[in-house]
Amino acid sequence: MPASSHHRGKQHINRQDLLDAALRLLGPNRSVSTLGLREVARAADIAPNSFYRHFRDIDELAVALIEQAGGALRTIIREARNRVSNDRSAVVSSVETFMEQLEADEKYLHLLLREGSAGSTAFKQAIERQLQYFETELQEDLVRLSSAAGRPLSRPDLVSKAITRMIFALGGTAMDQNSDQREQTAQQMIIIIRMIIAGSLILPRQHAGL
Amino acid sequence: MPASSHHRGKQHINRQDLLDAALRLLGPNRSVSTLGLREVARAADIAPNSFYRHFRDIDELAVALIEQAGGALRTIIREARNRVSNDRSAVVSSVETFMEQLEADEKYLHLLLREGSAGSTAFKQAIERQLQYFETELQEDLVRLSSAAGRPLSRPDLVSKAITRMIFALGGTAMDQNSDQREQTAQQMIIIIRMIIAGSLILPRQHAGL
Repeated sequence: MPASSHHRGKQHINRQDLLDAALRLLGPNRSVSTLGLREVARAADIAPNSFYRHFRDIDELAVALIEQAGGALRTIIREARNRVSNDRSAVVSSVETFMEQLEADEKYLHLLLREGSAGSTAFKQAIERQLQYFETELQEDLVRLSSAAGRPLSRPDLVSKAITRMIFALGGTAMDQNSDQREQTAQQMIIIIRMIIAGSLILPRQHAGL
Repeated sequence: MPASSHHRGKQHINRQDLLDAALRLLGPNRSVSTLGLREVARAADIAPNSFYRHFRDIDELAVALIEQAGGALRTIIREARNRVSNDRSAVVSSVETFMEQLEADEKYLHLLLREGSAGSTAFKQAIERQLQYFETELQEDLVRLSSAAGRPLSRPDLVSKAITRMIFALGGTAMDQNSDQREQTAQQMIIIIRMIIAGSLILPRQHAGL
């Protein structure tokens, strides 16, 4: 029996179902700021009014999407960082995993890269919070790994900030690159990360006079 | 005599007058992608049809604005970099000048920072071109300054890319900071730039094993 316009849709969906529906609507080139409440409700197969049982408005859903994307991506990258083997360093493993996310089905990375300077203040603040979480987790791992190696970094807070911001900035340009160019960008990221770490090891002693 | 609706406005304005009018309309929070042709024509005191003598459409004007902003800012930063004195290094001078531009009347820096990931593909490409010009010019100066100091950098291309992307990424967050926070961000930028340069000097010899 086809649903009528008054009684259409599922009655029992949860918050996550709505987030999933919104995520499906976002292509690699679409910003969360363009999502409409009716459109998301339709994609989740619920009546528009039912939307309000889960989110105050479409902006609250968009911020929740950013948080979900950031959380998922942080877990993925952190696991990569700690999956060190003899032939793949933590730096190489993390950068490769980050770049793989540009082609992942979930579009989490696209979502974070798109909203960084587009969209409303609320979206930008949500992205900024996620980047700060990335920085904090990277800092913890850098302190642990470099101490274990007997060469503690100076200013690990700034090492992780520099790496995080550089990776996301170059990741933003990599979105529009072909796979050869992305491979080149990944190699550049690896060298730059090593420069920053190497510089942090000697910084207290010299700064090249520039 | 008040201008009638049919014969209003100036007859002789040039391309730059239109760009200036558009720039006046852009506040620190307004993207070039929101500029309207009629609005810009009104601000320049010409009839909408006269707009087409200077630009094909409003997007062509927006890209010209990005190029003007990038060109002006590159000149300002390059002069700062080469204005080295005994008590202010090239790094400190450049970072201070960059951050001063966040409060400059011309809004050039805001314009570049806003359009980086917002707006159309054409705008992003225009910003990307400007960042690449920044990188090329910084690379030239880094090669010259470090050679003059007898300590040539390795991979000056990546040193300048890392610095440029990091500065613009942190500059984007600094737009929303108060003056104390901006001062702190400037100090962080200076340390990070020195880390990158120091790392580049020793990178061929060691990379910390991470």
